[in-house]
Amino acid sequence: MTLAVALDLLADDLAQLEGLLARVCDVEYRVLGGLLEHILSTRGKRVRPLVVLAAGRLFAYRPTTLLPAAAAIELLHTATLVHDDLIDHATARRGRPTLNTLTSGGATVLVGDYLFAQAAAFATATGSIRVVRVFSDVLQTICEGELRQIFSSGDWDQSIADYEAKIAGKTASLFAAAAEIGAILTAAPRSARRRLRAYGHELGMAFQIIDDIFDFTATEEELGKPVGSDLRQGTLTLPALYALRELPAENAITAYLQSSDGTREDLLAEAIQTVRDSPAIARAEQQARQRAACAKRLVAGLPAGPACELLATLAEHAVARRA
Amino acid sequence: MTLAVALDLLADDLAQLEGLLARVCDVEYRVLGGLLEHILSTRGKRVRPLVVLAAGRLFAYRPTTLLPAAAAIELLHTATLVHDDLIDHATARRGRPTLNTLTSGGATVLVGDYLFAQAAAFATATGSIRVVRVFSDVLQTICEGELRQIFSSGDWDQSIADYEAKIAGKTASLFAAAAEIGAILTAAPRSARRRLRAYGHELGMAFQIIDDIFDFTATEEELGKPVGSDLRQGTLTLPALYALRELPAENAITAYLQSSDGTREDLLAEAIQTVRDSPAIARAEQQARQRAACAKRLVAGLPAGPACELLATLAEHAVARRA
Repeated sequence: MTLAVALDLLADDLAQLEGLLARVCDVEYRVLGGLLEHILSTRGKRVRPLVVLAAGRLFAYRPTTLLPAAAAIELLHTATLVHDDLIDHATARRGRPTLNTLTSGGATVLVGDYLFAQAAAFATATGSIRVVRVFSDVLQTICEGELRQIFSSGDWDQSIADYEAKIAGKTASLFAAAAEIGAILTAAPRSARRRLRAYGHELGMAFQIIDDIFDFTATEEELGKPVGSDLRQGTLTLPALYALRELPAENAITAYLQSSDGTREDLLAEAIQTVRDSPAIARAEQQARQRAACAKRLVAGLPAGPACELLATLAEHAVARRA
Repeated sequence: MTLAVALDLLADDLAQLEGLLARVCDVEYRVLGGLLEHILSTRGKRVRPLVVLAAGRLFAYRPTTLLPAAAAIELLHTATLVHDDLIDHATARRGRPTLNTLTSGGATVLVGDYLFAQAAAFATATGSIRVVRVFSDVLQTICEGELRQIFSSGDWDQSIADYEAKIAGKTASLFAAAAEIGAILTAAPRSARRRLRAYGHELGMAFQIIDDIFDFTATEEELGKPVGSDLRQGTLTLPALYALRELPAENAITAYLQSSDGTREDLLAEAIQTVRDSPAIARAEQQARQRAACAKRLVAGLPAGPACELLATLAEHAVARRA
């Protein structure tokens, strides 16, 4: 199944999801409405809600609870991006200025909080306390993952296991939650629910590793933000960690991390080029492909049909996509 | 009933609540645990959970759901304080340094988010989707109230109605939610639930007005933070608004709000003294007393007994307390 066919299968659900998300901006207080519109009008790829919607069709199909669940996952993701961009002083996302460049840091914190609340409201609208539990658990996990990332910034002595633990927390956990929530709402038996959760985890890992590769290999136009944002924040991702393994103790990456303001931009460009030219990119891609293959194997054990094929297609797409 | 007797009635519940809150710090990631401990070891007055616990004893009494609900409300309040202090660049709260003075702004945002998630987990632990709905609704209302406050900072042309709308959103809504959640969990009939919600609102309004008075009249030691914090943020509260009504167009308050850095501290002290010496304080106190009296009248319509007396005592205490 191609991604286009897969998306066609869910076209109605996706259109309704857009309707739910658009209504979030429809608030009495205009200042808030304007800020929400700026955030929600830059459409993401909607990968996480796709996971909810596909998993949620495997057994029973109940769109009235599935759609709010998909909206909850997308808004939770959006809220974390709003806070992340503020924390990272990021200026662009998806080719548009970030909220923190348009309003104060304080207002940005509060709009993010508002989005968390709105996400929680959608989770509640499923009527399932189990869904809300998965939702609150994953938010804790994401925050912890982000904190681990902040406090390990600039530390080039991290292991691959440290990196994996961090992206498991900050990214894969939400994919796992998306799949599990779909499983709960489709009334999947326990074994299928576990399988779906594991699928979400592997898919999320693959997705994040590929994103981390793009941060080195894509253009600013493709990324919708400056190249090398991770390294700029002192965040060492898989490509950088693999490259460091092969480089001498003194190298362009550690030189950048130790540099002071004056020479930073030149050194950053050099560090990015060093990673790009190294075998680290190919090795990281291989890791992502292994994760995606694992995700595909996991869905192979689920009831055959379009929903199952769709999940497999998402796993293929995670590693085949362009930035 | 005196407050001491009232607190004695709930001594067991309150001890268990402290146990639940202490366990929040018990996380695997030590850096996070340390930051949570700093926040949660500075015990607040626990007024909001007291409202949950008292309202939750009016009809059925089910401590297994009531205690997590009380913890949810207290942690939601704590999370908003963590973000507020960051936004306001506040340096002290309850006599101790704020989290934002001890760690980065980014980590402060994430610890606040983590506390929201933990609060949501406690709300979920009640097993009641209606409780979770009240919880997510009130978080939206609080964020909107805070945003309104930020965007009206320094605007001395606000009406009393603007002030009331803001404190209704940022403070009274949480008291109303606390009372309503208690009502849901005690299986109160609809009329009693509405009455409790209205009680919470009036109590919260009284509480905030008194806090806003203390910000002018108390000492730094009593407050646990610098005097005049609101005015320093450009936030015009009821005492300042009442004072402005009687003052000429050029006065100490507007002079402070228009001042630039060099002369600000002197002008702030003068503005505070102006409010303190004006009849505005007495008028604001009268407003708070009216709100508290209204809260007391509302509980008079509930089933008589210790829980009802406790709610009345809380209303009396809101306006009789010292800073």
